[in-house]
Amino acid sequence: EVSFDPKEHQHLRYNPLRDTWVLVSAHRMKRPWAGQVEKPPEEHIPRHDPRNPLCPGNTRANGEVNPDYDSTFLFENDFPALQPDAPDPGSDQHPLFQSKAARGVCKVMCFHPWSDVTLPLMEKQEVVKVIDKWAELVEELGNTYPWVQIFENKGAMMGCSNPHPHCQVWASNFLPNEPALSDRCQRAYHQKHGEPLLLQYAKQEAEKKERVVVETSDWLAVVPYWATWPYQTLLIPRRHVLRINDLTAEEREGLADIMKRLLTKYDNLFEVSFPYSMGWHGAPTGPHLTEDNSHWQLHAHYYPPLLRSATVKKFMVGYEMLAQEQRDLTPEQAAEKLRNLPEEHHKTREN
Amino acid sequence: EVSFDPKEHQHLRYNPLRDTWVLVSAHRMKRPWAGQVEKPPEEHIPRHDPRNPLCPGNTRANGEVNPDYDSTFLFENDFPALQPDAPDPGSDQHPLFQSKAARGVCKVMCFHPWSDVTLPLMEKQEVVKVIDKWAELVEELGNTYPWVQIFENKGAMMGCSNPHPHCQVWASNFLPNEPALSDRCQRAYHQKHGEPLLLQYAKQEAEKKERVVVETSDWLAVVPYWATWPYQTLLIPRRHVLRINDLTAEEREGLADIMKRLLTKYDNLFEVSFPYSMGWHGAPTGPHLTEDNSHWQLHAHYYPPLLRSATVKKFMVGYEMLAQEQRDLTPEQAAEKLRNLPEEHHKTREN
Ligand SMILES: O=P(O)(O)O[C@H]1O[C@H](CO)[C@@H](O)[C@H](O)[C@H]1O
Ligand SMILES: O=P(O)(O)O[C@H]1O[C@H](CO)[C@@H](O)[C@H](O)[C@H]1O
Repeated sequence: EVSFDPKEHQHLRYNPLRDTWVLVSAHRMKRPWAGQVEKPPEEHIPRHDPRNPLCPGNTRANGEVNPDYDSTFLFENDFPALQPDAPDPGSDQHPLFQSKAARGVCKVMCFHPWSDVTLPLMEKQEVVKVIDKWAELVEELGNTYPWVQIFENKGAMMGCSNPHPHCQVWASNFLPNEPALSDRCQRAYHQKHGEPLLLQYAKQEAEKKERVVVETSDWLAVVPYWATWPYQTLLIPRRHVLRINDLTAEEREGLADIMKRLLTKYDNLFEVSFPYSMGWHGAPTGPHLTEDNSHWQLHAHYYPPLLRSATVKKFMVGYEMLAQEQRDLTPEQAAEKLRNLPEEHHKTREN
Repeated sequence: EVSFDPKEHQHLRYNPLRDTWVLVSAHRMKRPWAGQVEKPPEEHIPRHDPRNPLCPGNTRANGEVNPDYDSTFLFENDFPALQPDAPDPGSDQHPLFQSKAARGVCKVMCFHPWSDVTLPLMEKQEVVKVIDKWAELVEELGNTYPWVQIFENKGAMMGCSNPHPHCQVWASNFLPNEPALSDRCQRAYHQKHGEPLLLQYAKQEAEKKERVVVETSDWLAVVPYWATWPYQTLLIPRRHVLRINDLTAEEREGLADIMKRLLTKYDNLFEVSFPYSMGWHGAPTGPHLTEDNSHWQLHAHYYPPLLRSATVKKFMVGYEMLAQEQRDLTPEQAAEKLRNLPEEHHKTREN
């Protein structure tokens, strides 16, 4: 009888944060790829482009002029998916035709005045300023809104339409699907095992080591056991922290450090500015601020699309959309690859 | 007070098949697009390419030679994500590190001997042959496997690596996430309302008309009330049918007809061979064949990525991956656009 080898034998892994399974078929990396090839990420971006609406001093779509900012810069999204005052669609609905009011705000936050830097290439203290601003926004918008979603779409491949380093913050009067699911899963685990799910998980991973990409005294970046995207990572503080605004000054320094190291490895993997979508999940806010949220643990998800090279991504399509997500290399293989990459950025090495 | 207008005011809609919500922000279509532009789908494909492993008479990766087929042609996927004999990862696992055996088969099915046709351009009787083969496969593989996923990835944009018209069939020893969720939702609705969810839904849509794209005496194609992809559609028989192999000869003719009409409209929308992923969901099979599955109704989902033109797709990225899916036009707007398109294919009009 053949003994089980995760690199050779397909199997299912359980995602305890979403209560779903992923199909791991590592032997699929052997198949040749004759499909779509992406444009590699743009490598030469001007530091200041007079036509780029995100640069300091430039005019945006609505006619507003950006200040001559020299650190982070926050403004209202000019085409917001959520506005504060949308009318209610009304109740009295058939169970198959249900709608609800959606209200909120959408903000854009530039990380830096220069278009030709990204987080891994910024100074650590500049990244700390980004983290401080994230914390401030969760504090402020979380006063009333139950959910404040911080996310970054990086690279044209991830639908990002502007190369200037920036993220978005969408706050809503509802708990969106993903955090609602994660809330249920973390709550159930906590009730059953008496410990926050991700705190236990971080402890286990810190011991096992095989999926760790980078670690510091306060933080852990791992390719989670249940990762669906090829080089997906999960960033978790080691201490029990509910929300990003609960991080101490020291933990923010540590976060800037681990983010720079993780993202440098990402960029070094295929020697391009690595595309991804990332975002923060923490305990819900607004009306939930007064509830017991001790089952929650703050964390960030990184979902990068690339699979084989700078130009061949993983397609989450037919089987994945209709049946179940499937991955083509094991999380341990991905973690090992990332772990072994240098922590000096390929661009600074060139200079 | 402003009264609610779904085209102007963002709102949430409930997806009863997945128990999730979608954010509809139709006013977002007004924002200009400066982001990634896709390569338009290849328009000139040779009828027979001696290097294409899917063409009749050619040799595949494993050295096998395709027969000189003149209708559909079925073979085992040369790089299967599921194999029948993978060993079991074993039990005795920590709740956060759970894995399970995954076994199954992956087949590829060519629709036609020619590489330069697609379903809407095939003769109706040729499409009936595809449907008959689908039914045969669900019958055969469904004898033992609990789930048989038929799906088609069409177009390079949807990860399809071969332009020859074909689909895939992956059968597994487990019920994947998506059908498991759909099963739970349909069961709960049936228990509560005493009627299959999608049968009630089809009746309502046939009366309301505003989301209908094409209808025949036996079938209905609608942009569902809860669609997430811009031009997503749902194809449902009007009669209560559990599985594709339960369709009568007449219903299969009707299905070929409505598929040709729907897919012709898709191709006519941006005058290109419209990319999508599609797949069939019916009652589970194998051990579930002897259970009561009367809450189920057979249906197909079409998930096309294009939003604005043949080269600008919808990116389901940061907010969508981390929080909740969001759409930029209402399902009613999408249905109206598709409904008003001619049923003669733009390619046959050209000739
Ligand atoms: O099997 P194919 O067509 O080579 O591959 C395509 O479909 C599969 C099933 O949806 C996906 O897992 C792959 O990412 C995609 O490229
Ligand atoms: O707001 P942006 O950056 O223009 O748009 C991008 O991010 C949004 C939020 O994830 C998505 O809805 C859009 O499809 C994507 O193109």
